[in-house]
Amino acid sequence: MSETHETVAHGMQPEDSSELRKLYKGFEEQSLIPLWTQLGDLMPMHPKPKAVPHVWKWADLLPLAEASGELVPVGRGGERRAIGLANPGLAPNAYISPTLWCAIQYLGPRETAPEHRHAQNAFRFVVEGEGVWTVVDGDPVRMSRGDLLLTPGWQFHGHHNDRDAPMAWLDGLDIPFSQQMDVGFFEFGSDRVTDEATPNFSRGERLWAHPGLRPLSGLRNTVSSPLAAFRWEHTDRALTEQLLLEDEGEPATFGYGHAAIRFVNPTTGGDVMPTIRCEFHRLREGAQSTPRQEVGSTVFQVFEGRGGVSINGTTHKLEKGDIFTVPSWVPWALQAETQFDLFRFSDAPIMERLAFMRTHVQAD
Amino acid sequence: MSETHETVAHGMQPEDSSELRKLYKGFEEQSLIPLWTQLGDLMPMHPKPKAVPHVWKWADLLPLAEASGELVPVGRGGERRAIGLANPGLAPNAYISPTLWCAIQYLGPRETAPEHRHAQNAFRFVVEGEGVWTVVDGDPVRMSRGDLLLTPGWQFHGHHNDRDAPMAWLDGLDIPFSQQMDVGFFEFGSDRVTDEATPNFSRGERLWAHPGLRPLSGLRNTVSSPLAAFRWEHTDRALTEQLLLEDEGEPATFGYGHAAIRFVNPTTGGDVMPTIRCEFHRLREGAQSTPRQEVGSTVFQVFEGRGGVSINGTTHKLEKGDIFTVPSWVPWALQAETQFDLFRFSDAPIMERLAFMRTHVQAD
Amino acid sequence: MSETHETVAHGMQPEDSSELRKLYKGFEEQSLIPLWTQLGDLMPMHPKPKAVPHVWKWADLLPLAEASGELVPVGRGGERRAIGLANPGLAPNAYISPTLWCAIQYLGPRETAPEHRHAQNAFRFVVEGEGVWTVVDGDPVRMSRGDLLLTPGWQFHGHHNDRDAPMAWLDGLDIPFSQQMDVGFFEFGSDRVTDEATPNFSRGERLWAHPGLRPLSGLRNTVSSPLAAFRWEHTDRALTEQLLLEDEGEPATFGYGHAAIRFVNPTTGGDVMPTIRCEFHRLREGAQSTPRQEVGSTVFQVFEGRGGVSINGTTHKLEKGDIFTVPSWVPWALQAETQFDLFRFSDAPIMERLAFMRTHVQAD
Amino acid sequence: MSETHETVAHGMQPEDSSELRKLYKGFEEQSLIPLWTQLGDLMPMHPKPKAVPHVWKWADLLPLAEASGELVPVGRGGERRAIGLANPGLAPNAYISPTLWCAIQYLGPRETAPEHRHAQNAFRFVVEGEGVWTVVDGDPVRMSRGDLLLTPGWQFHGHHNDRDAPMAWLDGLDIPFSQQMDVGFFEFGSDRVTDEATPNFSRGERLWAHPGLRPLSGLRNTVSSPLAAFRWEHTDRALTEQLLLEDEGEPATFGYGHAAIRFVNPTTGGDVMPTIRCEFHRLREGAQSTPRQEVGSTVFQVFEGRGGVSINGTTHKLEKGDIFTVPSWVPWALQAETQFDLFRFSDAPIMERLAFMRTHVQAD
Repeated sequence: MSETHETVAHGMQPEDSSELRKLYKGFEEQSLIPLWTQLGDLMPMHPKPKAVPHVWKWADLLPLAEASGELVPVGRGGERRAIGLANPGLAPNAYISPTLWCAIQYLGPRETAPEHRHAQNAFRFVVEGEGVWTVVDGDPVRMSRGDLLLTPGWQFHGHHNDRDAPMAWLDGLDIPFSQQMDVGFFEFGSDRVTDEATPNFSRGERLWAHPGLRPLSGLRNTVSSPLAAFRWEHTDRALTEQLLLEDEGEPATFGYGHAAIRFVNPTTGGDVMPTIRCEFHRLREGAQSTPRQEVGSTVFQVFEGRGGVSINGTTHKLEKGDIFTVPSWVPWALQAETQFDLFRFSDAPIMERLAFMRTHVQAD
Repeated sequence: MSETHETVAHGMQPEDSSELRKLYKGFEEQSLIPLWTQLGDLMPMHPKPKAVPHVWKWADLLPLAEASGELVPVGRGGERRAIGLANPGLAPNAYISPTLWCAIQYLGPRETAPEHRHAQNAFRFVVEGEGVWTVVDGDPVRMSRGDLLLTPGWQFHGHHNDRDAPMAWLDGLDIPFSQQMDVGFFEFGSDRVTDEATPNFSRGERLWAHPGLRPLSGLRNTVSSPLAAFRWEHTDRALTEQLLLEDEGEPATFGYGHAAIRFVNPTTGGDVMPTIRCEFHRLREGAQSTPRQEVGSTVFQVFEGRGGVSINGTTHKLEKGDIFTVPSWVPWALQAETQFDLFRFSDAPIMERLAFMRTHVQAD
Repeated sequence: MSETHETVAHGMQPEDSSELRKLYKGFEEQSLIPLWTQLGDLMPMHPKPKAVPHVWKWADLLPLAEASGELVPVGRGGERRAIGLANPGLAPNAYISPTLWCAIQYLGPRETAPEHRHAQNAFRFVVEGEGVWTVVDGDPVRMSRGDLLLTPGWQFHGHHNDRDAPMAWLDGLDIPFSQQMDVGFFEFGSDRVTDEATPNFSRGERLWAHPGLRPLSGLRNTVSSPLAAFRWEHTDRALTEQLLLEDEGEPATFGYGHAAIRFVNPTTGGDVMPTIRCEFHRLREGAQSTPRQEVGSTVFQVFEGRGGVSINGTTHKLEKGDIFTVPSWVPWALQAETQFDLFRFSDAPIMERLAFMRTHVQAD
Repeated sequence: MSETHETVAHGMQPEDSSELRKLYKGFEEQSLIPLWTQLGDLMPMHPKPKAVPHVWKWADLLPLAEASGELVPVGRGGERRAIGLANPGLAPNAYISPTLWCAIQYLGPRETAPEHRHAQNAFRFVVEGEGVWTVVDGDPVRMSRGDLLLTPGWQFHGHHNDRDAPMAWLDGLDIPFSQQMDVGFFEFGSDRVTDEATPNFSRGERLWAHPGLRPLSGLRNTVSSPLAAFRWEHTDRALTEQLLLEDEGEPATFGYGHAAIRFVNPTTGGDVMPTIRCEFHRLREGAQSTPRQEVGSTVFQVFEGRGGVSINGTTHKLEKGDIFTVPSWVPWALQAETQFDLFRFSDAPIMERLAFMRTHVQAD
C-alpha cells in the first residue's frame, strides 16, 4: 500500500527548479505545507497506526509495581503511584494507544492517594486483591477482585488502602485523547479521602444496582453511568448464564463458545462513559473468537485462565494478568486453552459517535 | 369553569331564524358540526375527564374471580378468564381509564390460557400467589408474588398453572387506547403453551437481569424491554435501600419517607413499553406523598400495608389488593398507616412522547 | 374475521345458570365487565375503525361557510367560525377521525378571531384566498393560497382579516385525541390580535426559512417547528424539481410520477408537531399512487387538478377543495386525471412515537 | 499554573538511588513510563495546547497558490494542489489545529482534480471566484463566491474548472484527527469527474434546499447533510434578517450587533458533518463579539469587510481572505471596523458528542 502511494506521489512531484525552491521557501516562511508532498501519510488507504501490537506480562509488571511501592511516595503533586504502559510505537509518550492510557496503580498498606478531579474519564479494573476503597464524589466504593470501578470525568476521587497488604490494579483513562485534543481540566481536592468508611456497597450501587429498576430520584439521564461499581459476582453470573443458554441451544453468546457482556450506563443502556467502552469476554476451553478488524484501539487484560491472542498473524501466549493492545484495524482473534476470561476496554464510543467505526469480521 | 364556558358560549350563539335553521340542516346533511355550539366540551380549560376516580376492594374482587373460576371455562375464543375493572364514568366500556385496561385474571389448577399475540402491550402484576408460568415468545416466565411480568406488543404469550391451587393476578393493557385509536392487530397461537417447562428464571432474565450489564448478543435497542420479569426480591431491595439512604441523610427517595422505582427497558433506560409506565412506591409508616396533578391516567394496587389515598379531596381507606384509578389532572396523595407498598401503572409514556405531559406538585 | 370471533366467542361462553346470573350481577355491582363477552370488539384481528371513509365536496362546503358568515358572529366565547367535518361513523362527535379534527374556518371582511391558546396542536392550510394574518405568539403570519401555517400547542393565536373580502381555509387539530385522552388545556388571550401589522413574512420565517441554516440564537430543539409558515412557492418548487429529477432518471420521487414532501421542524428534521404530520403530494397527469394501508387515520384536501381516490375498492371523483378521510388500515390509492396536487395531514407521529405504526404497500 | 505543577511534582519525586535507577531501567525495558514524572503535562489544570494562535494573510497566501499553479501539476497521486496552513506549534505537521486541516486549493483553467473518496470529512468555502464544479458522488455542485460545499466522509469527489481563469478556495478537513486517531480509509476513483455537466444547482439542492421541506424519498436520517451546497444568497439573507430583526427589537442575533448562523444537516437539525461545525458570522460596523473561551479549536476566514480579532489579549488586524485559528480554551473576540463577515469552522461536534465541551463567556 505504502509503496503504491510513494510511487504515485513521486510520479506527480513537480520538477526541481529554482522557482520551485523559491516557492517552497515561501511556503516555509508563511507556515504552509503542501499536500502533494505528504498525501500518503495524511490519508492512507486504511488506518496505518504508529501504535504497535504489544503484550505486557503480569509477571514483569507486578515486581516493578512492588518496587515502586518501596521507592516512590504517593501524595499530592504526583497524585498517583501509577505506571503507564507505553506503546513502543508511540514513544516517548506513555500512551498505550492514540486514545487510551493504561497503567498499573499500586497502593501500599494504609496509604492514601489524595482526591482530585479531571475532565478525563477513568476506570479501575481489579485483577486481584482487595482492601482499597475509591471515594468517588464522596461515595466510598470497595475495590475487589473482578470489579470494574468508574470515575467519570470531573468527579472527585481518591483512594485509600484500609488493609495491611498492598494492592495493585489496572487504571484506564482517555489521557492520550484529551492531551492531543486539548480538552483536559484538572482540580485538586482533599488531601485525604472525604469519607473513610469502608462499606461493602457504595451508595451508587444501593440506588442503581437493581436490574431493570431506576430510582425516581434519578430520572435525568447522565453522560456517564451513575452506577460506579460493576461487581464480579454479576459479571461472572451473566457470562455463566450465556454459556448455559448456548448449551441449551439458545442464541445467547457473541460467537460459538464466546460469552461477552458490555458494561453500560443504566440511564441510557449505552457505554459507561462517553469515550471508553468496557466489556468482559469469556471463552470456553478450546474456543476461538472470530477474527475481526475494528476501527479504534483496544486493550485486554487476562483475568483468569490461559490462552493466546493472534494479532496480525502473530500468536502470543497469555496468562493471568497479561495485558495486550490491538491498534486500529489490526486483525485479532482469541484462543482459549482453558476457560479464558478477559476484561476489555476500547475507544469504540469515540469512533461510533463520530461515525468513523467500521468492523470487518472474517467470514468462516 | 363550565359555567363560564356555557355563558360565554351562549353569549355568542347566533339568533334563531329560519335561515339559521336552514344552515344547521345543511350542516347535518353534509356531515358537518359547527365549533361554536360545542367549544367548551371540545376544548376545556383543563382536562375534564369522563372517567371518575374509583376504588375497587380486593375483598369484593377476589370472590367474584373465584366464582368465575367455577362457572366460566378458559380456552380458545374467550382466551382469558379476565374480569375488567370498568370505570363508572366510561360505561359501557370496560375501560379503567381512556387509555388503560385493568383486569383480574384467574387461572384454576392445571388450567392453560392458550397462546396468542396482539399489538396491545400487556403486563401482569402478582399481588399474591404463585404457580403460574406465562410463556412469552416461547420463554417460560415464572409468576410469583410481587413480580411484574411483561408481554409487550406482538409477542406470543399463554399461561399455564402448574399447581393444584388457583391463582389470580392483575392484568394491565393499553386496550382502550388501541381500540379508540384503531391500532389493534391480533393473531391466535398455539392452543397450549409452547414450552411447558417451569424454570425459576426465564431465559430473558438469565440474559438481561444483571445490573449494568448488557449481552453483546443484544446490542440492538428494542422498543420494549427484553427483560420480561422484574422480581420482587429486587424491587423490595431497591426500595429498602432508598429508605436506608434517606436515614443516612442521602438524597435517594422521591419525597420524604417515599421511596419509588420505575421499571425500565435496560436497552434504553426508558419505560418498559411504549405506552405503559410501571412503578413501585413505598411509604414509611405515617408518611404522606406530596399532592400532585398529572396529565394522563394512572392505576395503583396496594401490595402490602394499610393506608389511604386522597383523590380530589376525598379520602379512601386502602388495604392489600385494593385497586384505584386517578383520572387526568385530578389531584392525589397517598397516606401510610403502616409501611405502605403500592404497584403503579400509567399512560405517562403516551403523554410524554406526544409532549402533552404537565405535572403540578402542590407546594408545601 | 368478525364471524370467526363471534363463533369462537360463542363457543366458549359459559352455560346460563342462576349462579352465572348471580356472578354477572356481582360484576355489575362492582363495576366489572368480563373480557370473555367482548373480546372480539376489544381486540380485533386488525383495526376495525368506527370511522368510515368519507368525501366532503368543496362545492357543498363553501356555500355553507359563506352562509355562516352571514348568520353567525365571530368573537369571544365561540372563538372561531369553524365548521367541523364530522365523520359519519363517529357521530355525534365532530371528529373526522379518532384523533383528528378538520374544519372550514371562515372570516368575513375586516373580522377578527380573538386570541387564545390551547394544548391542542393546530394548523391552517389555504386552498384559496388571501388577506388574513394569523398572529402566533405575537408574530403576524400572512395566510395565502397554498401555504401551511402552524399554531403548535400552547402558543397564543388569533386571526384578523385585513381585506374587504371574506376568506375560508382548512383547520386541522388533534382535538379528538386530546378530548378522549384528557390532555386539553385552554386559556383566553387578547380580544384583538396583539400585532395588527400585515408583513409579507413573519419573524419566524425571517429567522428560520433559510435552507440548511439555523440561527445561533435558536440552537435549542423545540417539540414543534419554530418555523410557522411553509409557503406555496417553496412547496411547489420542491415538487416540480422532484418530477424534473425523475425525468432525468434520478431517484427523487416517492413513486413513479408521484412527488411528495413532508413539512418538518427544522430543529430536528422530524414532524412539524408532536401529533400531526403534514405532507404535500403531486401526481403527474395519468399517474397513480401505489395502494397502501397504514395504521392511523389521514385526511387529504385537493389543492389543484382533478382525479380520484380509491378507498377500500370504491373510487371517488375529486376536484379542487374536496376533502376526504381514510381510517386506519383501510387501503387507498390516488389517481390523477390532470396534474393532481393534494395537501395531506395525518396522526402518523402518534403511531410512530408509540410504536404502533405498520404500513402495507401492495406489491405490483 | 505550570509552576505550581512542577513545584508540587518536584516535591513528590522519589530520592535518587541505585534502586530507583534500577527501577527506572526496568520500566524502560518493559515499555513502561511512570505517571509521577509527567503528570503536569498529561493532565494540565486547563487545556494547554501546543497549537498557537496564528493569522495567515490572504495577501501572502494567494501569490503562493498562484505560483503553485505554474509549477505544480495536479493529477492522480498528489490528487490536489492544496497548500496546508501549518500551525507553527504543531510543526512538522501540516495541521492548523490538533483536529483540523485547512488549505488553499488552487485549480488552473480547465484543470481537473481526479475523483477519490476518504473517511475524512471535507468541505470547501469560496472566498472569491467561480467556475469550478465539485462532483460529489456523481452530483455536480457549482462553487461560487460565499458558498459552502460539503464532501462528507466516504463520498467520491473530484473538481474541474470549466473556465479559462484559475480559482482558489479554502479546504477544511478532519485530517489531523483522523491521522492521530487512526480512522482513515482512502480509495481512488475516476481520473476525470464522472459528470462534466455544469448546472446551476446540484441534484442535492433541488431535492433538499427548500426550507422546512423534506422529500418523502429521503426520510432516512444521515450522519452528514444530504444537502451539499449552502449558497451565499441564503446565508446573506439570513444574516441580514437577523440584524433587521434586532433593529426591530426582536431577539434574533447571537449578541448585540452580531448575527450568526450554523450550517446544518436538514435530516437532523444538527451539524453538517460528524466532526466539523460550520458557521457564518456577521458583525455590524463597530460591533464587538463577547469574549469567550471554548474547548476545541476553530478557524475563521474573513469573507468581507475589515476588523480585528483579539486572541489571548493580542489584537490582529484582518482583511478579506485572512485566516486565523484559535486553539482550545484561548479567549477570543472579534471587532468590526466595517460590516464584518466571517466564515467559521471548528471541531465542536467532537467536543460535544464526547461530552468534553465547556464554554466560558466573559461577563459584561
